[in-house]
Amino acid sequence: MGHFSDLVKQRRSANKFVPDTQLPREELDEIFSLVKYAPSAFNLQHQHYIVVDDPQIKDRMYEAAYRQYKVKTASAVILVLGDTAAYQNVEKVNEGLLQLGVITKHEFEREASSVRSFYESRGEGFQREEAIRNASLSAMLFMLAAKDKGWDTCPMIGFDSQAVQEILNIPDRYVPVMMITIGKEDVSSQRVRGYRKPAGEFVSYNGYQA
Amino acid sequence: MGHFSDLVKQRRSANKFVPDTQLPREELDEIFSLVKYAPSAFNLQHQHYIVVDDPQIKDRMYEAAYRQYKVKTASAVILVLGDTAAYQNVEKVNEGLLQLGVITKHEFEREASSVRSFYESRGEGFQREEAIRNASLSAMLFMLAAKDKGWDTCPMIGFDSQAVQEILNIPDRYVPVMMITIGKEDVSSQRVRGYRKPAGEFVSYNGYQA
Repeated sequence: MGHFSDLVKQRRSANKFVPDTQLPREELDEIFSLVKYAPSAFNLQHQHYIVVDDPQIKDRMYEAAYRQYKVKTASAVILVLGDTAAYQNVEKVNEGLLQLGVITKHEFEREASSVRSFYESRGEGFQREEAIRNASLSAMLFMLAAKDKGWDTCPMIGFDSQAVQEILNIPDRYVPVMMITIGKEDVSSQRVRGYRKPAGEFVSYNGYQA
Repeated sequence: MGHFSDLVKQRRSANKFVPDTQLPREELDEIFSLVKYAPSAFNLQHQHYIVVDDPQIKDRMYEAAYRQYKVKTASAVILVLGDTAAYQNVEKVNEGLLQLGVITKHEFEREASSVRSFYESRGEGFQREEAIRNASLSAMLFMLAAKDKGWDTCPMIGFDSQAVQEILNIPDRYVPVMMITIGKEDVSSQRVRGYRKPAGEFVSYNGYQA
């Protein structure tokens, strides 16, 4: 790639894809090998991705997404999940640091107990929000990494969560955070990019200003 | 920059910053001029950033973040907000397309009414989640854009939301989504990067698999 700013500007939400375009799983592997570096609270890695590239299951996702044409034409449709119980993996994510001697057994145990109590004391609403927040950080990195490999994406929130949860056998502890269609954009009918607020309208200093 | 993959791998959550490092607002402007390109549902641009670089207000943020040393040493601390009422700006974000003749008056009105009913019918819980989801997409782009300019960041969720809301005079309709400290990392005591799950553990195909 060239400049990061070019990548960011070239990434646009695709409304329509070139049908029958194969997305090789090897390319997805390369994308996900970068996605894993996204930050997450306490390194808990709340994200989980389900890639749907089977045509029949993709058709069911199309129905669950209210027949949006981009789902029909995408090479794959991806469901990004957030794990509300990710905090229960705290020992697992810190095991390596313990083994390497980077942290002591005491620090390992203190971290585990403090992370568990952080999530447990804040309750289910917070656990759900954490799933959404951290999976969304990951999803943004996914879309940029995909674009860097020449793949267009579109993040989507207009779908029937419950239907999707059934189609893909998703355990209740996961929140469907967003759907992402991926493929090669059909640019033949591309619109101008939507209006973006200038920074002055969404950034303020040392206190809130409208 | 070089390859996007290098940028992603070089971005690490900083635990400690070099104290007394000035972050020029011009550099923040450049970062935010890229951040605006992040996608958001219906292009509603739910994100709002409050940059705290005033030492006295930053000290109060340090207290609200339970005295985490990285807040003390950061050049600035940023609060990322999500607007639960962003859907009420739907006309504003589509006005340009209407003026340019890209959409008709009829399409403009249909979009406005469908977006309003999408958010209103799903209710307050959904509006809050949308604020978190879309502001988080934006926050990931912020952290990458900052790193691309040589600035290190750390996303944080351990802070007293209500205290922060008071310190910065934040209206109730905004959700404090995360805090981001920014500065030059003090790498003298940098630890190895935490364990990342391999893609095989967070990606599955055509259905959920643990």
